[in-house]
Amino acid sequence: MFSDKKVTYYFDSALSYVEKIIEKHKAIFLTDNNVYNKHPHLFEGLNTIVIHAGENTKQQKTIDEVINQLIQKEATRDTWLIGVGGGVITDITGFVAGIYMRGINTGFIPTTLLAMVDAAVGGKSAIDVGMYKNIIGLTKQPSFLLYDYSLLQTLPNEEWSNGFAEIIKHACIKDATMFEMLETTSIDYFKLNNEALASLVYKNVMLKSAIAQHDELEKGDRKLLNFGHTIGHPIETTHQISHGNAISIGMVCAAFFSSEIINLQQNLTQRIIALLEKYNLPSAYCFNKDKVFELIKMDKKRTGTNINFILIAAIGEGFIKELSLVQVKQLIDKHC
Amino acid sequence: MFSDKKVTYYFDSALSYVEKIIEKHKAIFLTDNNVYNKHPHLFEGLNTIVIHAGENTKQQKTIDEVINQLIQKEATRDTWLIGVGGGVITDITGFVAGIYMRGINTGFIPTTLLAMVDAAVGGKSAIDVGMYKNIIGLTKQPSFLLYDYSLLQTLPNEEWSNGFAEIIKHACIKDATMFEMLETTSIDYFKLNNEALASLVYKNVMLKSAIAQHDELEKGDRKLLNFGHTIGHPIETTHQISHGNAISIGMVCAAFFSSEIINLQQNLTQRIIALLEKYNLPSAYCFNKDKVFELIKMDKKRTGTNINFILIAAIGEGFIKELSLVQVKQLIDKHC
Repeated sequence: MFSDKKVTYYFDSALSYVEKIIEKHKAIFLTDNNVYNKHPHLFEGLNTIVIHAGENTKQQKTIDEVINQLIQKEATRDTWLIGVGGGVITDITGFVAGIYMRGINTGFIPTTLLAMVDAAVGGKSAIDVGMYKNIIGLTKQPSFLLYDYSLLQTLPNEEWSNGFAEIIKHACIKDATMFEMLETTSIDYFKLNNEALASLVYKNVMLKSAIAQHDELEKGDRKLLNFGHTIGHPIETTHQISHGNAISIGMVCAAFFSSEIINLQQNLTQRIIALLEKYNLPSAYCFNKDKVFELIKMDKKRTGTNINFILIAAIGEGFIKELSLVQVKQLIDKHC
Repeated sequence: MFSDKKVTYYFDSALSYVEKIIEKHKAIFLTDNNVYNKHPHLFEGLNTIVIHAGENTKQQKTIDEVINQLIQKEATRDTWLIGVGGGVITDITGFVAGIYMRGINTGFIPTTLLAMVDAAVGGKSAIDVGMYKNIIGLTKQPSFLLYDYSLLQTLPNEEWSNGFAEIIKHACIKDATMFEMLETTSIDYFKLNNEALASLVYKNVMLKSAIAQHDELEKGDRKLLNFGHTIGHPIETTHQISHGNAISIGMVCAAFFSSEIINLQQNLTQRIIALLEKYNLPSAYCFNKDKVFELIKMDKKRTGTNINFILIAAIGEGFIKELSLVQVKQLIDKHC
C-alpha cells in the first residue's frame, strides 16, 4: 500500500480486499460485459452495473445510462462508485462520480495493463462527443486504486502491447533507464515474471502520478504525457485501430518531427522504432492525412492557430514545443 | 468591483463592460431566446449560442447541444463561455464550462433577480436527469459575475417574487436585520429605488458567497441554504410551479416543522408567512404528498434512511437537523 496526499494505492492486492477498504453496502461496482463474463465469481453478491464493452461506449449516452441506474439503485452522496475494467470503465467511473450529486466517492480497479499504468492514474477522465475524442471530462482523483495482477492472466496479447505503448511513452519522455531496461526484456518476460511486472507497473504509476499531481490543470509537465497522442488520437478515431497501435505510430511521427526540428540524432528514432516493434507495436501506417489533420485542429492543446506539440530532445527528455497548425500539416505530409 | 480569492464581482456595470474584462474574440456567449429577443442589441457582433428558454431546458440533452455548438465554433481551452440569463443559463454555463475540454474559463451575467442573489452565486451548477432535479452537477466558480441592473427593467412581476423567495430565505437562516427591513419595504419600493435594490443585491451576494466559500463541499453551513428546498424542489418538479412559489411553500412547511420539533414560537411562523405574502409568495398549496415524498427520498442530502433537514431556531438562525424519512413523512402529512 502506498498513499500520497489524495490517493491510496493498493499494489498487488486481491480484488476482494476492497471490502476491507469500504463498507460493501455503500459500494456500487461498474464494469463491462467482457470483464464480467471473464470473472463472474468476482461480482457475486456485489451491487453491480454492467455496461457494454468497447471504446464506442465512452459516450455521453452511456453516462446517462449509468446515472439512471444509480438513481434506480437509490445511490446517495455516501455511495462509492467502483470502476472495474480498462480505461473506458475508469474514465466513465471517474466522470460519473464527478458529476453525480455534484460528486461522490470513487475507486478504480484496473483490469488491463494500459489502465494500470496510464488510464486509471492521474485523475483525468475523458468522454467522447461523436467523433471528437475526449472532448469533455473532469479532473477528479479516485480515493483509491487497487492492483490485482491476477486479472491480467486473461488479457489478450494485443492488450499487453497496448499497455507497453504507454510504458514506452513514459520511458521516452522521462526515464532513459527504463527505456534501456525495456530494450533487454519482452512481453513474454513480464507475463512469466510477476515480480518484474509488479515492479514495472509500480514504476510507471509513480512516474505518471508524480507528473499528474504536480500539474493537475495540465499547464506544464503533464502535457508531456501527450507524446504520440496529438497525432495518435486522431488516427485511432479515424481508422478504428487500438489506442496502443495508434500512439505507437504517433510516437514515431513525433520522433521524426523532433529529428527535423531540433536535430535529434537519427539513431534515436531508430531505437524508438526498434523498441516499439519488439513489443509488437507498429511504426508506420498509411492513414488519411486530411481527416487526421481536421481532428488535430480540435485538439485540447490547440491555442488559436498554434498547438502545443510534444517532442523529445533525447531518450527520457520530452519537451513542449508550440508549432503552428500549418507547420504540423507540413510535417505530417513529409514524415508520416 | 469586489474580488474575493476566486471570483471578481462587477456590481452595477453595463453588460458591454465585459469587453474590458476579456478579449472579445475569445468569448462565446450563451443565452436563451427570451433574453435574446428582449435585448437583441446587447448581442450584436458577439459570438452567441441561443438555447430555448425554460426550466425544462436544464437537461443533459441541452448540454450535448451546447457542447456540439462549441465544437462547431472551434472553441479551445482559451475560450471563455459567458452565460447571460437566469439560473437555468448560469447552471448550464457553469456545467458545460466545467467539462468542456476538462474545464474552460467562465463568467456569468445574471438577468433575473433570482440569479443575481442566488443561482449565479457560489459556483454550484446542477442539471436535471428526467424528473430528478439537480441530480448531476459540479462545483466550479466563474471567474467573474457582472451585475447590470438595467436588465431587470423587463422582468415580469412573478420573477421579482421568485428572487424575493431566496432573499427571504437568506434572511430566515442568517440575517434577522434584513428580515426586519424587508417587513417595512416591498417589491414596488425596490423597483423604483435603484440604490436600495443594488444594496439589497450586494448584501445577498455577500451572504451567499461567504457561506459558499467557507464550505465548498457542502459539509456544513452551506446546507442551510437548502432551507425550504427539501420539500420545495419536489413540489416544483411535481406540480410545475415556479421555483420561488415552491420554496415559499417549502419554507412555510419547514417553519411548522421547526415549531413542532424545537418549540419555535408560533408567531415567528406567522411573521414568515406574512412576509412571504407581502412579496406575493404563497404560504400554502395542496400538493401530491406521495409523489413529493418519493422525490424527497432521492434528495442529495439523504444519507441512508435519514435526511439532513434545515430548520430555524429563530429568525436569522437556521440549523441542520437529521430527521428520519419516516418522521419527515409524518410531518408532511400533519403540517403541509
